[in-house]
Amino acid sequence: MFQIFPIKGGLDTVEGFFCDGVHAGLRDTEQPDVAFIRSDTLCDIEALFTTNRFQAAPIKHYQRYPDGFQSNFVLINAKNANAMTGKRGIDDIDTILSQLPEAANAHNPVMSSTGVIGYPLPVEKIVSAFKKFDFGAKNSERAAEAIMTTDSFKKELAFEVVLEEGESFRIAAICKGAGMINPAMATMLCFIVTDADIPKARMKPLLKKSVEQSFNRISVDGDTSTNDTVMLLANRQSGVWDEEAFSEALDMLTHRLALMILRDGEGANKVVAFEVKNAKNEEEAKRAAKALSNSLLVKTALFGEDPNWGRIASTIGASEITCDEAKLVIKYDDLIVYSSEFPVLDEAREKAAAEIMKQPQFTISCDIGEGDATYTAYGCDLSYDYVKINADYRT
Amino acid sequence: MFQIFPIKGGLDTVEGFFCDGVHAGLRDTEQPDVAFIRSDTLCDIEALFTTNRFQAAPIKHYQRYPDGFQSNFVLINAKNANAMTGKRGIDDIDTILSQLPEAANAHNPVMSSTGVIGYPLPVEKIVSAFKKFDFGAKNSERAAEAIMTTDSFKKELAFEVVLEEGESFRIAAICKGAGMINPAMATMLCFIVTDADIPKARMKPLLKKSVEQSFNRISVDGDTSTNDTVMLLANRQSGVWDEEAFSEALDMLTHRLALMILRDGEGANKVVAFEVKNAKNEEEAKRAAKALSNSLLVKTALFGEDPNWGRIASTIGASEITCDEAKLVIKYDDLIVYSSEFPVLDEAREKAAAEIMKQPQFTISCDIGEGDATYTAYGCDLSYDYVKINADYRT
Repeated sequence: MFQIFPIKGGLDTVEGFFCDGVHAGLRDTEQPDVAFIRSDTLCDIEALFTTNRFQAAPIKHYQRYPDGFQSNFVLINAKNANAMTGKRGIDDIDTILSQLPEAANAHNPVMSSTGVIGYPLPVEKIVSAFKKFDFGAKNSERAAEAIMTTDSFKKELAFEVVLEEGESFRIAAICKGAGMINPAMATMLCFIVTDADIPKARMKPLLKKSVEQSFNRISVDGDTSTNDTVMLLANRQSGVWDEEAFSEALDMLTHRLALMILRDGEGANKVVAFEVKNAKNEEEAKRAAKALSNSLLVKTALFGEDPNWGRIASTIGASEITCDEAKLVIKYDDLIVYSSEFPVLDEAREKAAAEIMKQPQFTISCDIGEGDATYTAYGCDLSYDYVKINADYRT
Repeated sequence: MFQIFPIKGGLDTVEGFFCDGVHAGLRDTEQPDVAFIRSDTLCDIEALFTTNRFQAAPIKHYQRYPDGFQSNFVLINAKNANAMTGKRGIDDIDTILSQLPEAANAHNPVMSSTGVIGYPLPVEKIVSAFKKFDFGAKNSERAAEAIMTTDSFKKELAFEVVLEEGESFRIAAICKGAGMINPAMATMLCFIVTDADIPKARMKPLLKKSVEQSFNRISVDGDTSTNDTVMLLANRQSGVWDEEAFSEALDMLTHRLALMILRDGEGANKVVAFEVKNAKNEEEAKRAAKALSNSLLVKTALFGEDPNWGRIASTIGASEITCDEAKLVIKYDDLIVYSSEFPVLDEAREKAAAEIMKQPQFTISCDIGEGDATYTAYGCDLSYDYVKINADYRT
């Protein structure tokens, strides 16, 4: 038995972790653009990275450390992805990290970047942040603001997990991500810290499972970036461990952050769960659900709040899964909008469907009737604002 | 030796073919919405249909005819796809076609539909067109107008092919397609007629090859519809045949129509050829080229005329092909925008790149440097208007 309590704040709530965000001139505005996260003791660290073949320099830099290395310091910048920058990109990270002051007490520091591809890092600007940082601060809010790109709100969450015996540990995260979110964990950075006494060997499996059920199920525009990173740092300072409780807290954390990212999808107004049920097998359920969450025609119909289930059916039919229009049943929340046994959508039911679509969050479910596999993907609508934001991202 | 001359007009230019389009009340405007194409003698007929699992009723109806059947009559309607309409959808086609008057002289008539999914055909309205049709007309323009959906202009083309001996035959087509065009031949109808004396056995292979190099290479939004059809009718009235000449004319015809569809992509302002060169193999070249033509981030960058080659690189990297940033070279027309040996895009070259992007048609080429396979896909930009058109398609 255990209980999970949401607590106010972010990374600052976890024992032994410190963070701050400052403005170092990477942005035109006064918003912070460089952040650090550090622990006063060494941490075990695990990270999952983008599947993009052109992984950014900070990812390559991270991977130069030996397996199982420990670290206590993460430096993060916005506005420049340090991707497609070749050997220089990695050298720049070394140059920057070597200038961290003693006050940072950094051991095996790692870096993470997000922003535009193909330009060298502004090394001096980033280094100038080191004089502005308060390395003893617990300023999660500023760190969360510093890593934002097209995000319209900062994303941080923290939970306290209390075991039956009254012992407790905490887990918290900041993340960023708005556009370019795809079912393969895209254009997002997420930094999770915990004081749970998690065995090093359990970190990767639990993180993988959690990401598969959260960040890998959301899609804003189906693109996968060069920089996506989910990182977990554990300083074990609580001395408390319960795998079931930790895993549930981690899953809640990543699932909620994933939906936050989706809700903040560029120009998005609503979050839709695409549930594909009774598909022939898991692979087909997943393929169909992801096809729905990525379809431009479905996304624009959501924006238009048009209960045009034909686009749902057409997308299912185009996803190369086993299916039959005589068996298919499509529902918006609990309303059947298509079934071969049901009459054509009449005016009353069409009106009801349109009402369902006006909600900020609802479910479109497709019962395929060919097996018992289920998969849920999450998507958002595509609005004028998505086009606007992405047509002039760099300006 | 042969020559191919474009000639003014459409289906009307080919011996023995007749066509017309009339308004039968399916549209709210006075634009024609029902069309026929007929030959005064029997034709060999071949068709390629959508790969969508939910093929529309007219496709199922066509497939009930025995292999190698001959026909001389095609009826086409807009505004209603007759898809996801079950057995009723096929029965409705029988009901409609059985009421064709004697003047139609229809033998094994077939039907084709485009429009909204999930509503029964307005049978009486469509039948009412039969009284308005002039079955002896050669009114290709009206037929081309009748099959339009979100198209902003009608699409028809005709060629005369003159052999060395002075003998000649003709080939012509009308087609429609604007949104929902995907590399798997989507939301488009195309009707090709010829009086060439083509052997029945050559029709399918030549049509397949031609479609693979044209309609299958264009993408407006990556969706594949329930109704896509490319149909070829040959009445052989010229008595003239030359396979090489016919094949070249057919390829020119389909390639030009495909680019017309792309130019008319919903809200699209420019057509871009995505050429992937020196990929490891053809499959990888195709995958990368299609990923580029379908990427929302690439499409919005095209609309914004932002020479953000990072999105091109990121999409290549995410397409799961063999690639290495040290070997990759990206060009806009003849301008190198990325190469690991080249310096960062400076202001002058960035300006030049932006100028290239202002053109209504240009090429983005990616040299992968891993082999010798090449594939070119064609795409268009994504604008506010795409969202507008698709958010309220049905209204």
